Amino acid sequence: MAALLVKNIGMLATPEGRSAKRGKEQGRIRILRNAWILCEDGLIAGLGEGEAPALCGGTPGGGDASGCEVIDAGGRLVTPGLVDAHTHLIFGGWRQYEMEQKLKGVPYLDILASGGGILSTVRATRSATEDELYDKAKQALDEMLSFGTTTCEAKSGYGLDEETELRMLRVIKRLNEDHPIDLVSTFLGAHALPPEYKDDREGFISLLCDKAIPEVANQGLAEYCDVFCEKGVFTAEETRRILLAGQRCGLKSKIHADEIEAIGGSQLAGEIGAVSAEHLIVCPDEGIESMAKGGTAACLLPATSFYLGASFAPARKMIDAGVAVAMATDFNPGSCPCLNMQFVINLGCLRYKLTPEEVLTAVTLNGAAACGRAESRGSIEPGKLADFIIWDAPDLNYICYRLGSNLAWQVVKSGIAVKKNG
Amino acid sequence: MAALLVKNIGMLATPEGRSAKRGKEQGRIRILRNAWILCEDGLIAGLGEGEAPALCGGTPGGGDASGCEVIDAGGRLVTPGLVDAHTHLIFGGWRQYEMEQKLKGVPYLDILASGGGILSTVRATRSATEDELYDKAKQALDEMLSFGTTTCEAKSGYGLDEETELRMLRVIKRLNEDHPIDLVSTFLGAHALPPEYKDDREGFISLLCDKAIPEVANQGLAEYCDVFCEKGVFTAEETRRILLAGQRCGLKSKIHADEIEAIGGSQLAGEIGAVSAEHLIVCPDEGIESMAKGGTAACLLPATSFYLGASFAPARKMIDAGVAVAMATDFNPGSCPCLNMQFVINLGCLRYKLTPEEVLTAVTLNGAAACGRAESRGSIEPGKLADFIIWDAPDLNYICYRLGSNLAWQVVKSGIAVKKNG
Repeated sequence: MAALLVKNIGMLATPEGRSAKRGKEQGRIRILRNAWILCEDGLIAGLGEGEAPALCGGTPGGGDASGCEVIDAGGRLVTPGLVDAHTHLIFGGWRQYEMEQKLKGVPYLDILASGGGILSTVRATRSATEDELYDKAKQALDEMLSFGTTTCEAKSGYGLDEETELRMLRVIKRLNEDHPIDLVSTFLGAHALPPEYKDDREGFISLLCDKAIPEVANQGLAEYCDVFCEKGVFTAEETRRILLAGQRCGLKSKIHADEIEAIGGSQLAGEIGAVSAEHLIVCPDEGIESMAKGGTAACLLPATSFYLGASFAPARKMIDAGVAVAMATDFNPGSCPCLNMQFVINLGCLRYKLTPEEVLTAVTLNGAAACGRAESRGSIEPGKLADFIIWDAPDLNYICYRLGSNLAWQVVKSGIAVKKNG
Repeated sequence: MAALLVKNIGMLATPEGRSAKRGKEQGRIRILRNAWILCEDGLIAGLGEGEAPALCGGTPGGGDASGCEVIDAGGRLVTPGLVDAHTHLIFGGWRQYEMEQKLKGVPYLDILASGGGILSTVRATRSATEDELYDKAKQALDEMLSFGTTTCEAKSGYGLDEETELRMLRVIKRLNEDHPIDLVSTFLGAHALPPEYKDDREGFISLLCDKAIPEVANQGLAEYCDVFCEKGVFTAEETRRILLAGQRCGLKSKIHADEIEAIGGSQLAGEIGAVSAEHLIVCPDEGIESMAKGGTAACLLPATSFYLGASFAPARKMIDAGVAVAMATDFNPGSCPCLNMQFVINLGCLRYKLTPEEVLTAVTLNGAAACGRAESRGSIEPGKLADFIIWDAPDLNYICYRLGSNLAWQVVKSGIAVKKNG
């Protein structure tokens, strides 16, 4: 039996439970001092305060000498591993040239018209082989792991044709098998109208609903279906049609909603029982109400707001209304070339003005809930996956306060110390 | 002869010259493609495009096999090492508890009144031994180096009594001798009015001018004298008096000016020939004009603006007016617990809207100029220190565009590859 004992934990901070935390619950976390965690076969077997158990791995006479790994946390903080519930992990190329163009005053529409913007990523993704996409995404995952991410949602959506979308989803599936980080796969065929269909919306939506979604579901390549519900992209009615087609095939729903204009995405999310709605920068009160009623988690993406110089989603209002708030990176080559959840933690306090406790829940248990994984992870409790971070920090406030340093000292995934920065 | 050859550089980007770059010059940099750099005895011996020299270290028959180190940059970007021209590197403790208090709505003045704020750092610094301060600052320097900083200014100012201030300056001196990063030492005795003098401003200013400054200069412990010129801290007239006392003892001038309110700091900076004025968030036109006339560099601290949610200094206006713009971290435990110059680079583009070329000059040559080091570093040119970064990036735009990842692949300080992240 593979066992790991982490002892001498100065502060252990974790939300508790197997579902999202809403309202005042979001800020209620369990704190243990002078604590230990015992992991067996990849799961949390026990935790407590005070003297760590002398036996390790359940074997009498075991302990430090019996092949059980022991980590001395040296008084450091331990929290659950971070769950990054919204990423566009798979793409070809980068878009650094846009930074220069934008600073020189070239409007985004001109960049797009000259073949840049999202269309350049679509081109680069279409022309990349499966192995190229795999290698590039694997590098990103390695780095995410070093920052403490142990579960990560990943979307397709830069192929916009059947062949490339399926290739992207196969890459996610392979990475989920090969990489320590667990991946949750989302089909985002409705990320944009592809150039080939610019004069045939109906044709593209039919293709998605009648062919692509059943094919993706049939091949078991995605668990979620997502739509970019935004003015100029897909309307709320189109979004409903696509997501319900997904639900009929067994794909749960996520929605890119209310990022730039509120056109009904968040209301729809609650109505159709979407697991999460994401962005929500301009989410109206009716949207918040609908999400609260429907049990839809709000997956907020503050690094994108930061990167675009946009405003920040009304996180406090959502918490007050009883919506479970999660936070994720939105890692993508256009609006957020950032895969670092620690920066998201900073922004949760600095910009959303959430408390460190609320932020912790947002990036762990509620992140897990936003991708349907709260049963198995997102908190440090017996029976859950042994996914946690030993931070180079004495307490929870410190990781919200320090900025720009990688504070993850060791990252433990499924009971194995996979990334040692210390 | 110690020699290092870096070959196969995809893009070498560097400002040129031995003094600050102003106006349009700030954005003019030299770009080499398919380049190499030869370092000898810690200095740049040569650089060029195309085939790297077959001889290395000047020894015929030398080259890769002769004990000369060769690094294959693999087509990566190389820039000069980063110069962080404004840090409060030396301090005891941290202030993470303030994050929580501020989020709970406790006003800063209440935090201060209860012994928090800067006064808690003063207490922690006074009670720390020289070795404790040394070890803590050394850790920070190690991390700064890993992010690409090769020269760093460091201020005293959390002692506010003679004994502690001298202790801080001795730590800077020892670190400068021991650590690969070169330090520039600044006496900031006038950081705040110490509690002991709260009813005796005149007494404290006299102490600074008549005793502390001569003592610091006499012991050779600082090169600069700095004053926090701000409403409620030191007036422009008090600042003038202290800085001129410094100049009489051979200490060059720096000024914390116009951070919150414009009370004349930037005007004074130009008038008395200060090497740099720092912060400058609310710098008025007359201040910009005075700095342009006096040849004072503007050392901007965008991570502090970000951290405080404040506005950003008028960088473009300064460049247009012919002021040399530098950018630094302001690393300190209160308003900017960030030592990562790469985040400062991001903010230079994202918030100041400077071009990548202007940003590069700001964090290299103009940073060096802001602490009087432009003769010896801040650009990759024969005769200058061989301080540079091999970035995990294909071009200059990329390091401005990517956010939250440490992109420094190898850091070379004085011709030695001191930090290999790759």
